[in-house]
Amino acid sequence: VVSAAAVAMSGPIVTLTTDFGARDGYLGAMKGVILARCPEARLVDLAHDLPPGDVVATAFALGESAPYFPPGTVHLVVVDPGVGSARRGLACAVGAQRFVAPDNGVLSCVLSRGEPARAVALERPEHWRVDPSPVFHGRDVFGPVAGALAAGTPIEAFGREVPSEGLVRVPFPDARREGDAWIGAVLHVDRFGNLVTSVRLDGPARGAALIAGRSAPGARTYADVAPGALVALRGSSGRLEIAVRGGSAADTLRVARGAVVTWRPA
Amino acid sequence: VVSAAAVAMSGPIVTLTTDFGARDGYLGAMKGVILARCPEARLVDLAHDLPPGDVVATAFALGESAPYFPPGTVHLVVVDPGVGSARRGLACAVGAQRFVAPDNGVLSCVLSRGEPARAVALERPEHWRVDPSPVFHGRDVFGPVAGALAAGTPIEAFGREVPSEGLVRVPFPDARREGDAWIGAVLHVDRFGNLVTSVRLDGPARGAALIAGRSAPGARTYADVAPGALVALRGSSGRLEIAVRGGSAADTLRVARGAVVTWRPA
Amino acid sequence: VVSAAAVAMSGPIVTLTTDFGARDGYLGAMKGVILARCPEARLVDLAHDLPPGDVVATAFALGESAPYFPPGTVHLVVVDPGVGSARRGLACAVGAQRFVAPDNGVLSCVLSRGEPARAVALERPEHWRVDPSPVFHGRDVFGPVAGALAAGTPIEAFGREVPSEGLVRVPFPDARREGDAWIGAVLHVDRFGNLVTSVRLDGPARGAALIAGRSAPGARTYADVAPGALVALRGSSGRLEIAVRGGSAADTLRVARGAVVTWRPA
Repeated sequence: VVSAAAVAMSGPIVTLTTDFGARDGYLGAMKGVILARCPEARLVDLAHDLPPGDVVATAFALGESAPYFPPGTVHLVVVDPGVGSARRGLACAVGAQRFVAPDNGVLSCVLSRGEPARAVALERPEHWRVDPSPVFHGRDVFGPVAGALAAGTPIEAFGREVPSEGLVRVPFPDARREGDAWIGAVLHVDRFGNLVTSVRLDGPARGAALIAGRSAPGARTYADVAPGALVALRGSSGRLEIAVRGGSAADTLRVARGAVVTWRPA
Repeated sequence: VVSAAAVAMSGPIVTLTTDFGARDGYLGAMKGVILARCPEARLVDLAHDLPPGDVVATAFALGESAPYFPPGTVHLVVVDPGVGSARRGLACAVGAQRFVAPDNGVLSCVLSRGEPARAVALERPEHWRVDPSPVFHGRDVFGPVAGALAAGTPIEAFGREVPSEGLVRVPFPDARREGDAWIGAVLHVDRFGNLVTSVRLDGPARGAALIAGRSAPGARTYADVAPGALVALRGSSGRLEIAVRGGSAADTLRVARGAVVTWRPA
Repeated sequence: VVSAAAVAMSGPIVTLTTDFGARDGYLGAMKGVILARCPEARLVDLAHDLPPGDVVATAFALGESAPYFPPGTVHLVVVDPGVGSARRGLACAVGAQRFVAPDNGVLSCVLSRGEPARAVALERPEHWRVDPSPVFHGRDVFGPVAGALAAGTPIEAFGREVPSEGLVRVPFPDARREGDAWIGAVLHVDRFGNLVTSVRLDGPARGAALIAGRSAPGARTYADVAPGALVALRGSSGRLEIAVRGGSAADTLRVARGAVVTWRPA
């Protein structure tokens, strides 16, 4: 078990999750602003090639990564298609992790874990850059707040508390039971073309999945089927996952997020 | 305000901006060399997917990010199509920031800010790796120099001073006035397909932009227009920017860097 | 020369090489786990866009980057198409560097340098996350081991020693002599479309390369030929490389890894 004190001695950790890509100055500007506010911060890149403005993909990626960090970690999340509009900015504590993000659903999976959450709306411009650009709150609002939070400013300093139940959430509906089967949907397509579904599994996938007119037999891991074969397994998030060994299930099946999947346990 | 001393206590910051991508050993080799020279350095990735050899895109990205870093930060920039030729290598101090880069224009935007600049040509092989490869100065010349600079070697140690007015610059021409209008050009197309132009704006974009035969109404932020609509706004660099809400202006208009834009203030 | 003690004072270095890309939660989860085990670790990203499951490309990238790091660096390598199968996991010391990786060939180039190697098979679940997922050993096995190794756990603690000659290696065959010429193959195609071959050169490329029916004249660096021209040079790995100045040799010649090249020294 890691104490927050041990982390602090090596410099506070600030992770970054964005749709900024890696060929513009946006990421660098935001990192510079964080380090200017908290020179001892240790920046950790999580994912910067999120599809532009894709709040659902961001929520999923964040939910699968943030919980593993040491307590006190600050997670800065800037996938912000509504930048400059009336959507709120947030600083939150959820369990032992802290978050700075727009209130647009990117925290949905993190919040759905049922850990105690406390959130404030970002309302105190004295913590922002002067005259913030209405098209780049990452640099001018969220980055400075994340830096100040890492440097020790308490969360209450950034604005008034807002009830965590009122935060924007994008739906990640659970699969529903229908007779012997579960009917779910593809929640996420990963880089490998694996299809992560809404069907939760307690143990190894024993049974068969039906998707896009094809049947995928349950197995424990990719190597349990022949190269190129479809397989259904319990993914690393504890959900049913459809994969092709050494290939892309998304390409093979030509399906995308939202596709229906039926799981028949053996 | 951050003191250079506070930064140094947590380890000097070295940022990296390259066209190396993320699937070869080049970036790792350069990082290893820096850390071998300055084991306490903190490496910060800015952008590694710059288009291969694209000095203009690099200059723009660097100009939009480097100024936000704490004083004393070392920025290592290796987009270097002329590697091994007679083009010089540079170590520079520009304002409070420091740079190590080829003298090929990548510092153009940084230098155009009008801050005091001091540059030396990299001429002292004792700071390089032995027998440097003529095709990878990032690993064998620039990386070692950046590491040594971060470790405290003064800039003068790397070579003779050269006048900063003589450094190579790529043109970023300002827009020109024509009657009531400003005629400018697209300077940069970002990951989102936004078109950053050479028209500078002091405040919100009030007026209309003409580009590729289409008119884009001025607005404050993306959300001020309907999804899919063209919009002209003051971008985060203080320049007129043409965007499509939730889409790509570059794809919609089929324009690239260099395209002409006319801005008619209201 | 850098001492391991100097590095340790600033926090142990853990590099990461994966095929995880930058749009899922996998990389973040693995980083979180490392930092949870070793809060003072300094994470350094080497390459995350390796082609999915491409052990050969990974071995090559790692071989070109790992040797440059300070002694004691921990290199975590997770390109692991056989995850969950009977393939072993490894913790190794090779020369002054340390590695945590699947035993699938990703260490081939590192091992071929002839430095003393010591390897243990990962067999002690007390160092792993509880109930590891059979499809994500990066998060549940390799990440925790890398964190523990960085935090000071000796390599012997992770399992029984295995002979380094028995580790899986993918072939990187040397070029063979035929009369005056060398017959080799393309080992790696880099981001720029340069073709790195198996022909080793002691000095500048003087002669001509034949590949895909085209002749590439030897030169010292790209700038020695006209823009768009084919050129053969000694690459930064000491091998013959085929390039197109300002372009992609892979696109120009339509060749991929494995293509035959003939080198005729002058």
